[in-house]
Amino acid sequence: MPSKHNAFIPAPRILLGPGPSDVPPRVLQAMATPLVGHLDPSFLSLMNAVQDGLRGLFRTDNQMTLAISGTGSAGMETCIVNLIEPGDSMLVCVNGVFGKRMTDVAERAGAEVHVLERPWGEVFSIEEIEEALAKHKPKAMGIVHAETSTGAWQPVEQLGALCREHDTLLVLDTVTSLGGVPVEIDEWDVDAVYSGTQKCLSCPPGLAPVSFSSRAMHAITNRQRKVQSWYLDINMLANYWGTERAYHHTAPITMNYALYESLRTIFEEGLEARWARHDLNHRALKAGIHALGMRYTAAEGHQLPTLNAVSIPDGVDDAAVRMTLLEDFGIEIGGGLGAFKGKAWRIGLMGHSSRKSNVFLVLSALEQVLRKQGHTVEPGAAVAAASNVYDS
Amino acid sequence: MPSKHNAFIPAPRILLGPGPSDVPPRVLQAMATPLVGHLDPSFLSLMNAVQDGLRGLFRTDNQMTLAISGTGSAGMETCIVNLIEPGDSMLVCVNGVFGKRMTDVAERAGAEVHVLERPWGEVFSIEEIEEALAKHKPKAMGIVHAETSTGAWQPVEQLGALCREHDTLLVLDTVTSLGGVPVEIDEWDVDAVYSGTQKCLSCPPGLAPVSFSSRAMHAITNRQRKVQSWYLDINMLANYWGTERAYHHTAPITMNYALYESLRTIFEEGLEARWARHDLNHRALKAGIHALGMRYTAAEGHQLPTLNAVSIPDGVDDAAVRMTLLEDFGIEIGGGLGAFKGKAWRIGLMGHSSRKSNVFLVLSALEQVLRKQGHTVEPGAAVAAASNVYDS
Repeated sequence: MPSKHNAFIPAPRILLGPGPSDVPPRVLQAMATPLVGHLDPSFLSLMNAVQDGLRGLFRTDNQMTLAISGTGSAGMETCIVNLIEPGDSMLVCVNGVFGKRMTDVAERAGAEVHVLERPWGEVFSIEEIEEALAKHKPKAMGIVHAETSTGAWQPVEQLGALCREHDTLLVLDTVTSLGGVPVEIDEWDVDAVYSGTQKCLSCPPGLAPVSFSSRAMHAITNRQRKVQSWYLDINMLANYWGTERAYHHTAPITMNYALYESLRTIFEEGLEARWARHDLNHRALKAGIHALGMRYTAAEGHQLPTLNAVSIPDGVDDAAVRMTLLEDFGIEIGGGLGAFKGKAWRIGLMGHSSRKSNVFLVLSALEQVLRKQGHTVEPGAAVAAASNVYDS
Repeated sequence: MPSKHNAFIPAPRILLGPGPSDVPPRVLQAMATPLVGHLDPSFLSLMNAVQDGLRGLFRTDNQMTLAISGTGSAGMETCIVNLIEPGDSMLVCVNGVFGKRMTDVAERAGAEVHVLERPWGEVFSIEEIEEALAKHKPKAMGIVHAETSTGAWQPVEQLGALCREHDTLLVLDTVTSLGGVPVEIDEWDVDAVYSGTQKCLSCPPGLAPVSFSSRAMHAITNRQRKVQSWYLDINMLANYWGTERAYHHTAPITMNYALYESLRTIFEEGLEARWARHDLNHRALKAGIHALGMRYTAAEGHQLPTLNAVSIPDGVDDAAVRMTLLEDFGIEIGGGLGAFKGKAWRIGLMGHSSRKSNVFLVLSALEQVLRKQGHTVEPGAAVAAASNVYDS
C-alpha cells in the first residue's frame, strides 16, 4: 500500500445532495483536536453538554437523550430493537425508502409488521393512520417525518396523542428534518426518535442522536428478553451516558467533538432562525426550479425545505446532468432511489449548505446544463425568480 | 445551551491507557479535510484503498475486508450476528471481559453458547481447546487474541487448522493486537476477525476493521434467515463496498479519511518495524515496572507488548495514583475492569503512544507517585532499567 497511495486530497465539493451536507470550517477544525480518553473528566463533561444540546434540539426533557455511535440507520435500528421483542406487533407507514427500511429492521427484530402504504411522494392522513391503529393495535408505530427518498414532509403533530389513545409507542424518523424544520418531541408526544448528524446539523456522518420518552423507557426496562443488539442496548448505554459512567464501548471521541461544535453553531444561530433560513432558501430554490420548468415530486404543502425532490424533465439524461454538475461545478446533487431511480433529483439545502449563494449557484448551473441537454429554458429566469423571493 | 457552553478545549493528555491511543497530528489533520459525498468517485477510490490497506494489515487476500461503521464492539457483533443463526452452537473462550462480552453477544444472536473458561490473566492451551471442539462440535468458536482487560496474549497460530478439522468457523478478536503484534489471518486460517481503530492503528475510535474468509462468506450467503442486524448485515454491506456501490447507509466519511491516513503511516513505517517497536518499548517498560517492584498479571511469555497489565502494589490507592498521573502529568493509564477492578493498572503502549519518551515519562511519573503513596522505590531505578534495555 505505501508506495501506491498518496495523501487523500479530494476535489472541492459543494454538497447539495441528500447528505452529507457541507460541514462548517469550525466543525472540521474541532475534529483535529487531540483526543482524550472516553472516561476522561473533560470528555464526560462534553457528553453532558452534548446531551443537553440534543435535548434542546429535539425540544425534549427526556433524560434518555444521547448520540448513538453509528450513522442514522443505526439510530433507526436502536429505536426498533429496544422497543420490539419477538412477536410484538408494529405498524409501519411506508411511502419511500426509509419507511420500507423500517419494516426490514422491524422484521429482523422479530416484529409482526403491519404496513400502511401510500404511493411515493405522498403523505399519510390522520384518518388512515387512526384506522390502522384501531385495526392492528400495535405495540409501536413507525413513521418518517421527512422522507429523504421523496422529499415528502409528513404532518406528525397529532400522531403522538393518537398513539397514546391506542396504547401504541410512536417512533419518529427525523433524519432529514432535525435542525432544519420544527421538531417538537415533547409537544408532539413522540416516544422514540432518531436522526443523523450529516444532514441539517452539518456535522459529518458517524453519530445518530436519539431520544426516548419515559413511556418508551418503561417498555425498555421491562423487557422479557435482552435487546438483540449488545452494541445498541439502551439499558447498557444508559449506564455509560448516565451517572454511573460504566464502560460499555469506546465512544467515538472525535465525532462527539464535532457534534458538540455543531450544536454550538446551531444554538448561536437559534433554532427558529435556522428553520426560517431553511424555509427561505427552499422557497427561493423552488421559484427557480419552477422557472426551469420542473416540478416537485411531493404535493404543494408537503414539500420538505431541506430536501427538494424534483422530477427530471423528459428527454434529459439523469447521469449526464449529475456528472456535469459534479465535474464542471463541483456540485453534488442526489439521484433518485428505488421507485424514483432515474426519475428524480434530490437537491439538499441542509444546515451549512442551506445558503443563498448555493441556491443561485445550483440554479445557474442547472440552467446551463439543462440547456445543453436540449431542454428549453429562458436564460436567467431561474436566478431572477429566486431573487424575487429574497427581495420580497 | 449557547450561553453555557464554550468551545471545547481539552486538557493535554498522553494516552497510555487501554485506548484510545494518541493520534498522530497528520491523522488529526486529515479529519479537518472537507467532506465529499459517500458515493463521490473520490470517496469510492478511498474506500478501495482502505480495503487494500486493511488486507495488508490483516495479512489476508479476503475480498470481504472492510471497515464497519461503529467501534470495535460493533465489529465483534458484526462477526457474530452474521455467522450465527438462532440455535447454532458457538464455543467461546473466556478469560477476561472481552471473551465474556462475546458470550453475551452470541446469546443475543440466539446461539447455544458453550463456555471454556480460564482464570483472568491466563491463556488457553491447544489441548483444552481441541477437547472442547470435539465435545461441542460448534459451528463457530470465538477467542480473544489480546485480552484488553488482562494483558494476556493468547497463542492462536494453530487454532485455524484445528477448527477446520472440526468444521468450526474461527472468530478472532484482534482489537488490541492488530498493528502492534503479528496478526496473520490467512496463514492462521482465521474465518472472521475484527478490530478497532483506536488502539495500535492510532486512529480515533469510530470504525471496526473486519475480514471474512471464503468459508465464512459461504456460511453468510447461505443463511436460512436474514442477519438480525440490518446495520451490520455483511450481505448488504458487500453491495456498497463491492463493485455495485449500492447505497446502504451513509458511511462515516471523516472517520474513513482518518483510517486511510493512519494506514499510510503504518505502511510507511512497515509492519515488521512497527511490531519490533512495540516489542522494544514493552521490554523497556517491563524492566522499569519490575524495578518499581511491580509484576505483570499475565505470565511470562504471554504478556502483551501493547497492553501492560500490572498488579497494583499492596497499600497503594488505585484511584489516587491514576488521578495524580492525570492531573500532574497529563498521563492517562487504565484502571482494572471486572475481576481486576482496583487490582490492576493497564498501561497501553499502542501505535503512536508506543514511544521511548512515553516509557521514560510514565516510569518517572509512577516512581514519584508511588513514593508519595509510601511504596518503597529506589530513586531512578525504573528509568535506569528501561535505559538498559534501549542500550543493549
